[in-house]
Amino acid sequence: MMTISSAISKSLLADHSQFIGIDLGGTQLRAACLDKDGTILGQKRLPTDTENGPDGVLAQISALIAEVRTNDCRGIGIGIPGTFSALNGTVLNIPALDGWKNYPLAQHLQKEIVLPVWLENDAKVAAIGEGKIGAARDCRNFVYATISTGIGGGVFVDGNLLRGAQGLAGEIGHTRIADASAVCSCGKTGCWESVASGTALAKKMTAAIAANPNGILASLVSDRPPSGRDLPAAIAMGDEDAIRILAEEAFFLGAGFVNLQHFYAPERIVMGGGVSALLPLLHDDIKAVMKDRLLPGFNLAEVVRATLEDAAGVVGAAFFARAMAEAGQLSHGR
Amino acid sequence: MMTISSAISKSLLADHSQFIGIDLGGTQLRAACLDKDGTILGQKRLPTDTENGPDGVLAQISALIAEVRTNDCRGIGIGIPGTFSALNGTVLNIPALDGWKNYPLAQHLQKEIVLPVWLENDAKVAAIGEGKIGAARDCRNFVYATISTGIGGGVFVDGNLLRGAQGLAGEIGHTRIADASAVCSCGKTGCWESVASGTALAKKMTAAIAANPNGILASLVSDRPPSGRDLPAAIAMGDEDAIRILAEEAFFLGAGFVNLQHFYAPERIVMGGGVSALLPLLHDDIKAVMKDRLLPGFNLAEVVRATLEDAAGVVGAAFFARAMAEAGQLSHGR
Repeated sequence: MMTISSAISKSLLADHSQFIGIDLGGTQLRAACLDKDGTILGQKRLPTDTENGPDGVLAQISALIAEVRTNDCRGIGIGIPGTFSALNGTVLNIPALDGWKNYPLAQHLQKEIVLPVWLENDAKVAAIGEGKIGAARDCRNFVYATISTGIGGGVFVDGNLLRGAQGLAGEIGHTRIADASAVCSCGKTGCWESVASGTALAKKMTAAIAANPNGILASLVSDRPPSGRDLPAAIAMGDEDAIRILAEEAFFLGAGFVNLQHFYAPERIVMGGGVSALLPLLHDDIKAVMKDRLLPGFNLAEVVRATLEDAAGVVGAAFFARAMAEAGQLSHGR
Repeated sequence: MMTISSAISKSLLADHSQFIGIDLGGTQLRAACLDKDGTILGQKRLPTDTENGPDGVLAQISALIAEVRTNDCRGIGIGIPGTFSALNGTVLNIPALDGWKNYPLAQHLQKEIVLPVWLENDAKVAAIGEGKIGAARDCRNFVYATISTGIGGGVFVDGNLLRGAQGLAGEIGHTRIADASAVCSCGKTGCWESVASGTALAKKMTAAIAANPNGILASLVSDRPPSGRDLPAAIAMGDEDAIRILAEEAFFLGAGFVNLQHFYAPERIVMGGGVSALLPLLHDDIKAVMKDRLLPGFNLAEVVRATLEDAAGVVGAAFFARAMAEAGQLSHGR
């Protein structure tokens, strides 16, 4: 039951307060201060300090917060590209950054800035951002799927962000979808990530260039590593390898999206990450695969591109912190 | 905000009322009346009338309700082995029964018995039953997976039953897990159901018997169709086909359960359906496959057998109706 004092503090939070979202990436560190409508009042970014371990990044986060903090700032949300404990705000592991093992990020930061700090998975905060003011605005059932170096996700069902045991629900990249594949980042084969991520695309392109060193794709890419970004030009020039690789990508994205529909029943799938830039080329083929494999009774989910781009992390982290504060959740840095 | 009258009616419901659960199966029709603790006060079953279409089954349901109904009965929950609209209580399709297309079951029944009627998917109500008083009692994150002729499921994440768009979340059987397979009941290939269901087991056994008509399996099964129930005896006698088929079953169950962990992050997987009788033989191999494929950071989910057996449907349907009434949800038969 809501007491009078909690009702007052909630209305103050909702109306006048701001929250800061932090996006802790392997290459970029970003901070933004948002009001209740999602308007960014201030933002700042730095290249992530990869030399001095977590203490160096902590100092960077404190400095960014000092720059964007407003007078009515009530808390900080941080999107973590790894695992953490919500019980005590300790980051357990960040695969992309050295030295991040069992680091009490939320406690250290909260001591320095004297504001509550909450941690959440980076793909989940991006999903929150897209759900609040992005491509899934006002949608109660959606999956945010980032198709990038890896594949990650954040899932809303019946209006709730799925967390599950240890907060790990939504590891959509590591679900077996095929018998064989190149070895996945997790060390196994057959994962969705291993057949449909940007890394999978690049591996197929590298193999095609090696097999056909005088082809269109090879001439376009020249001496740098290939990426999905090279596909539109190669396809426009009629390159058959590029056409085949794109068709395979559409098949595995479509089959994976049907898996998402059967597991979670979203109305919309929001595609983020680098490969989402290819969605205009892929969309019709993805939908054809989905239509073919979807069970009778299901309405085909929309497949749309994320709209917040690089800002999804900071926006979602700020909204996440606001929701935690409004729900009266203890901070993770206590 | 809770009003005084709703608080009173909720406490009355919780303390003194009973609800009836109906399990509408393709072969058996069951009804039970339960109190708030899940004690069955009365139960009854009939072979499902498959001759007279939905009107015949409606008459059977009314007769069963009349037999088990108590004075304080406040509503009816029905588990539907097909699709329905929760907006108006119309059953859209029941694949296993003839004539069930767009049949207004909840409206018709509610008119006859003058009690609110709510419909829910049969696997979801079984999951509710196992979660309330069965193998997932007091577990906030679990998947109930029925491995039977087909594969179905009901999923709780963060204490909530997942419904999703059109109420269709949890169609775990029709997720692509392999490149090739026998054709699935949905018409596609590669679905989990097509490689791990009881039907898949029986198909592999039929093929093994055809290839080895003088083998142990063939002699055990003789002239009836084989089923998973025949495997333990064949394995005890050292039949190599049976050993291989069981190992394949363990692999695909383990890989499928890892998919469930990565998607939903359950602490426990509750296995129901006929194939769950083989769990003692399968358990260690399933766990080995899961351990091999599970992402770092995840704790291995327990895999246990459902405990309510045939009663899961009626128990879950009654608890479902109670929850709908307590939440003040409009009945589906209005």
